[in-house]
Amino acid sequence: MTRRGPYAVGTERKAQLVRATERLVLEHGHQNVTMRMVAAAVGVSEAAAYHHFSSRDELLVAVIGFRDEGEGARDVVDLVHHLVTIAAENQRSPHAVELFADMAAKASDRQHPAHAFFADRYARITKTLEEAVLADQRAGRLSTRLSAHATAVTLISLMDGLQTRWLVTPDLDMADHLRQLIDALR
Amino acid sequence: MTRRGPYAVGTERKAQLVRATERLVLEHGHQNVTMRMVAAAVGVSEAAAYHHFSSRDELLVAVIGFRDEGEGARDVVDLVHHLVTIAAENQRSPHAVELFADMAAKASDRQHPAHAFFADRYARITKTLEEAVLADQRAGRLSTRLSAHATAVTLISLMDGLQTRWLVTPDLDMADHLRQLIDALR
Repeated sequence: MTRRGPYAVGTERKAQLVRATERLVLEHGHQNVTMRMVAAAVGVSEAAAYHHFSSRDELLVAVIGFRDEGEGARDVVDLVHHLVTIAAENQRSPHAVELFADMAAKASDRQHPAHAFFADRYARITKTLEEAVLADQRAGRLSTRLSAHATAVTLISLMDGLQTRWLVTPDLDMADHLRQLIDALR
Repeated sequence: MTRRGPYAVGTERKAQLVRATERLVLEHGHQNVTMRMVAAAVGVSEAAAYHHFSSRDELLVAVIGFRDEGEGARDVVDLVHHLVTIAAENQRSPHAVELFADMAAKASDRQHPAHAFFADRYARITKTLEEAVLADQRAGRLSTRLSAHATAVTLISLMDGLQTRWLVTPDLDMADHLRQLIDALR
């Protein structure tokens, strides 16, 4: 079965490699996952793995895209519920948050595979959120004190910043902070 | 002259090493700065540099602390002005923002020198901001829809998240986004 969407991995083998990498990252942390481990988990040679992903970082970036795809499949009409759900899920996946923070930091390097990925990701998620905010504003569920675009950028950046902080102080309730800001913007 | 404050470097030699590292980071980016370069800039041996900082990352973390010290010396009564000033300054220092993002991502590792630094930094900056927000709320310059603590955590996390995004999409106006949120919370 071929996966669809902006981050469709194209071939079943690629999808297998990404899924195996995700499992290994969630269990061991991305710093400890090697191409050899991923190849072994799928039952192919390291060379075969490198045929699909030219570097370990390219494969790690694909894992973030794969997780986003799952998120995109959810109902985004209820913006609050959507954001809070993601934050709550992330609170159970420290290794996924670590991967995200590390790749986001590396994305400033235009040569790194994370750069194009994050540029596209920010544009895409901002558009989706902006539409959801607009719908909420038109329905009177959110004030228009902050524009739909600014609200979308603010919520995404707040969530990214909260995740960085949460890695250092895990008692931080990310979902609650998002909820409080949204309530303050009603 | 001995520096004072929570991140006082203690000896003039340490201060020289940190200042030299800051200059090299701003010019070349922290990924390209070696202990050898720092030692040469100060005119000491690499061994002497390692006497003061047991690792390159410990020295890089000290640079963030050194820059914070400068920030702390500013007038924080006007919260908006303070935050906007930092964001505007950061927009002129991509290499400083890269250093911050990279060390923040590494801080999740309890063995890394960035961990204790960031835990302390979040606590300290949150306290300072919370007091400034409370003063603004009492003076009627900010609404109390969002608590002083939640406002402080939100503004710090938003700034951190905006910086990560700005590294990928440099046309983002970080200062303007902070200003817009604060205006929406008046």
